[in-house]
Amino acid sequence: MAMTGVLRPGHAQIRVLDLEEGVRHYRDILGLVETGRDAQGRVYFKCWDERDHNSFILRQADCAGLDFFGFKVLDTATLNKLDADLQAYGVKTERIPAGDMLETGERVRFEIPSGHLIELYAEKTSVGNGCGLVNPVAWTADSERGIAPVRLDHALLYGPNVAAVQKLFTEVLGFYLVERVLTPDGAGNVAIWLSCGHKVHDIAFAEYPEPGKLHHCSFLLETWEEVLRAGDIMSVNKTPVDIGPTRHGVTRGCTIYAWDPSGNRFETFMGGYQPYPDYKEALTWTFDNFGQGLDYPQRKLHETFLTVVS
Amino acid sequence: MAMTGVLRPGHAQIRVLDLEEGVRHYRDILGLVETGRDAQGRVYFKCWDERDHNSFILRQADCAGLDFFGFKVLDTATLNKLDADLQAYGVKTERIPAGDMLETGERVRFEIPSGHLIELYAEKTSVGNGCGLVNPVAWTADSERGIAPVRLDHALLYGPNVAAVQKLFTEVLGFYLVERVLTPDGAGNVAIWLSCGHKVHDIAFAEYPEPGKLHHCSFLLETWEEVLRAGDIMSVNKTPVDIGPTRHGVTRGCTIYAWDPSGNRFETFMGGYQPYPDYKEALTWTFDNFGQGLDYPQRKLHETFLTVVS
Amino acid sequence: MAMTGVLRPGHAQIRVLDLEEGVRHYRDILGLVETGRDAQGRVYFKCWDERDHNSFILRQADCAGLDFFGFKVLDTATLNKLDADLQAYGVKTERIPAGDMLETGERVRFEIPSGHLIELYAEKTSVGNGCGLVNPVAWTADSERGIAPVRLDHALLYGPNVAAVQKLFTEVLGFYLVERVLTPDGAGNVAIWLSCGHKVHDIAFAEYPEPGKLHHCSFLLETWEEVLRAGDIMSVNKTPVDIGPTRHGVTRGCTIYAWDPSGNRFETFMGGYQPYPDYKEALTWTFDNFGQGLDYPQRKLHETFLTVVS
Amino acid sequence: MAMTGVLRPGHAQIRVLDLEEGVRHYRDILGLVETGRDAQGRVYFKCWDERDHNSFILRQADCAGLDFFGFKVLDTATLNKLDADLQAYGVKTERIPAGDMLETGERVRFEIPSGHLIELYAEKTSVGNGCGLVNPVAWTADSERGIAPVRLDHALLYGPNVAAVQKLFTEVLGFYLVERVLTPDGAGNVAIWLSCGHKVHDIAFAEYPEPGKLHHCSFLLETWEEVLRAGDIMSVNKTPVDIGPTRHGVTRGCTIYAWDPSGNRFETFMGGYQPYPDYKEALTWTFDNFGQGLDYPQRKLHETFLTVVS
Repeated sequence: MAMTGVLRPGHAQIRVLDLEEGVRHYRDILGLVETGRDAQGRVYFKCWDERDHNSFILRQADCAGLDFFGFKVLDTATLNKLDADLQAYGVKTERIPAGDMLETGERVRFEIPSGHLIELYAEKTSVGNGCGLVNPVAWTADSERGIAPVRLDHALLYGPNVAAVQKLFTEVLGFYLVERVLTPDGAGNVAIWLSCGHKVHDIAFAEYPEPGKLHHCSFLLETWEEVLRAGDIMSVNKTPVDIGPTRHGVTRGCTIYAWDPSGNRFETFMGGYQPYPDYKEALTWTFDNFGQGLDYPQRKLHETFLTVVS
Repeated sequence: MAMTGVLRPGHAQIRVLDLEEGVRHYRDILGLVETGRDAQGRVYFKCWDERDHNSFILRQADCAGLDFFGFKVLDTATLNKLDADLQAYGVKTERIPAGDMLETGERVRFEIPSGHLIELYAEKTSVGNGCGLVNPVAWTADSERGIAPVRLDHALLYGPNVAAVQKLFTEVLGFYLVERVLTPDGAGNVAIWLSCGHKVHDIAFAEYPEPGKLHHCSFLLETWEEVLRAGDIMSVNKTPVDIGPTRHGVTRGCTIYAWDPSGNRFETFMGGYQPYPDYKEALTWTFDNFGQGLDYPQRKLHETFLTVVS
Repeated sequence: MAMTGVLRPGHAQIRVLDLEEGVRHYRDILGLVETGRDAQGRVYFKCWDERDHNSFILRQADCAGLDFFGFKVLDTATLNKLDADLQAYGVKTERIPAGDMLETGERVRFEIPSGHLIELYAEKTSVGNGCGLVNPVAWTADSERGIAPVRLDHALLYGPNVAAVQKLFTEVLGFYLVERVLTPDGAGNVAIWLSCGHKVHDIAFAEYPEPGKLHHCSFLLETWEEVLRAGDIMSVNKTPVDIGPTRHGVTRGCTIYAWDPSGNRFETFMGGYQPYPDYKEALTWTFDNFGQGLDYPQRKLHETFLTVVS
Repeated sequence: MAMTGVLRPGHAQIRVLDLEEGVRHYRDILGLVETGRDAQGRVYFKCWDERDHNSFILRQADCAGLDFFGFKVLDTATLNKLDADLQAYGVKTERIPAGDMLETGERVRFEIPSGHLIELYAEKTSVGNGCGLVNPVAWTADSERGIAPVRLDHALLYGPNVAAVQKLFTEVLGFYLVERVLTPDGAGNVAIWLSCGHKVHDIAFAEYPEPGKLHHCSFLLETWEEVLRAGDIMSVNKTPVDIGPTRHGVTRGCTIYAWDPSGNRFETFMGGYQPYPDYKEALTWTFDNFGQGLDYPQRKLHETFLTVVS
């Protein structure tokens, strides 16, 4: 198999302060499809074009933020192999039994040096995208309910020890470095973008003193017009926008950052080029040009980008 | 490494009846970047956003068509492993020494049951996309010279024994089936679309009595507006258009098919969804609905699609 | 007032063979807003972004086609002035009292040399576009119900005596010629595009032996992506497509031509440049290049364009 | 003639601190076409798709800002009529002889209550858009040289006495009010958008204590993708961006505001709806919602919008 190991981001569990308010935001404004609720009171969503049962889960809690971020791997053998590799590397792993999350198989959970909980899993029930498997339609009303992203694309996580995180993801989990922002002295990286396939990023990290923080989960749109439409829908619904619409210099992707009612930032994103692991050198941004990397037209390092996390 | 084995289409060598006429077409109208000419008289091109030295090669000959289609693999160990796997599967392979093609390492060549020559290689000199590696620009004039695709995306090849080709690509080379069109009786496939990563297709085949035929090489654009612009540039240059602009039902991608001056069809393409190898079932088109798969708005199986190859 | 006289196309009344089938097509697939039904059984529609009560009316009849096409004029004084001008020019006019059409004032009706009934009127009740007049929203769900054009844009009518029609529209009604296709001998025009403002066309005519025929009514979309989406929605609903998506050379606009269930052609259209009446010369297409004028990428004069009318 | 009186914005003359620096900005980055220089040292430009000889003129001076803004009228009779109407209204007018500006006929100049010099003229030499008048091309390389707007679209001017300006433009010059922002007490307008055709604005004014100030001249693009591209080209060239890319709530148009090297703001703009003079009510924004009117997604009244003029 040419595409092996870790396939893609599969699920993110997020804490919200008021569950129904969160549901209204993610279901009615962002346009995720609600696929279930479990005995713990968690609400499960998927993006309309995803085939697996869920990719985004809300849990009510006293503070906002990320519970865990999970990657789907190719199969159970891969899951077991990666679990063994993690342990051999010195990472303590935990097995969470199948069924703890709705329609999801056994998960391998571990904490990374930035303080985030990462999970791997091989099984999640396929429920389809609603377009059919035989003579599928190319357009469906679901693709226009709310902002209606096609998939959970990636997350940007803030925490300490980005160098150790990079080493773990590249040496054990099979990711490669696509882009990075250097520290002011050029000796290290303040931010890294990592891919496990040929997406421009599947996960990204930025150095931050407090561990385990969420900068944003990102949802993929297909066109720049859909990014504009996302901004329109946010405005009509008084969703607070952070940055955008604009293009990132990093990844060349186009974006709006906004906040959910609990203060979790989310991104509606499109575009970016497609790298491959044979690309010898990661694209590098100097610290003094971080602003152009963040907001390409404005060349501006917005203060909130560096300071507001959940 | 999560992305292993065969990475992507890397090069296609095409026969043209008049070399300079072909160069004018592919360089000035399609907007490929000419990167070299070799002692055999072959002319090498790359797409502007590709980093490797070449992806498309013209050779003057008495008849149009495809000499060979090559895939880049992760590294030399992968190349040797796949060579051994092919031989173990019963496929005779040939080693072509590094340097036979400009800036390209050793290639493993073999004929597949449809009569096409396929190659694997691990090394091609990286020359970059002209945007720089440090604080790269997000826009360059090269991205607007001619139609200016970002990469060689895939090819559709016509020949016999599609079932055997599918078995070889999926069992030995690590591809998976993304979509297919059934035979009229539903017992087999008349056409298959295969991926080795999470592109909607890296190679496709259709059943055809004559072996080794080229239906089209496809070049990727980034937006539907660029497809329209491609059609404008074709019209201004009197490039004969076959089909489009339109959307394919198969892959959901958007397309124009047109012909180069020697009668080789090429495609300017964008979009499509991104599948993964854990998708359990390939999308399936019934033969009676092939027209909607080809031309989604018109639901029309254009005669030329089935009959004109080179 | 800088914008005086005839303002724009205001309404078209079309014959359909089955009223409810027609309503389903225009309301549910094209996405017009149904605004009323009258005692004669006619069904009234508007496009979502139009402010007046109606712009498109269906009447059940034994044959498809156009009953009449109406233009809104600035005010009642203008209506009376144009009526007098028409009579002075030798055109017989008829007054149809206010209230004959729902929410529509008195109309001046006359037959033009191509055999079509044209109307002028000054009053139609403003019902708004649903976005509000104070702090209006920039996005509304109505803008995405079905294909959802923003307005009735123009019509192309087929009939005899195009030269006399041109003279009437330019000398009496204040239109100017924007583009034209010459006859094969170059001595006259086989088709003309006329504007009364700075739209690229408000009405167009083509020479045809049979009088009073409808080629198509055109509905405006805002982007090329919306033209693609229109094609998707047509395909899902099995609406028969005639030509497109493509760009016209004439007007530079982008189009899909398709048929309603009764065989009336309609167009979903976007773009085109904006001419002004001080442009000294109309753009001219030679007859041998009519194909590029119709279908710019394909440079093809599709047979149906010349022969299928209602 | 349906389109009479004032047709459209025809030219703007702007002061720059360094002429050659200004030329490089407007010619090489914005992509205007340089069409001439006169004995006074002024440099003349047009947008590629405009047919008249010039629309934008640079004059070197000690301070940035707007010298005058001119409208083209239908013909000489209209020019004389409007001159007489202005004088009858109590506005002092000045005749500037033909030839004072290159390829431009006699101009009628007058000062409006906001302290700006406005001009009317009927004649400017048509030089064409480079696409030809017979079988015109739909694509030309000029349309992609720099940002490459299609036309000078409108200007926003800051000065006192907006109410008196509105009265003059609507009662004498034939404009109508399309949108407005109310004063905080709702008793008057702090900003008005006026049209003389069916563009969403041909000129706009905002109340400001200092007379004769330029907020921005606006150049029209055709798509939201071209707005993104404009931002890319600005970033590559280090053009300072003020606001955007974003959508305005007012007009629904999409925008980037940026500054030329002398500090004159310019806009690259697309879209907006098309109003007509029979629309009974102008769209109205309350002062407390001015932010949503300016930047629809962010709902933010950027400080620079109110305070930085030239």
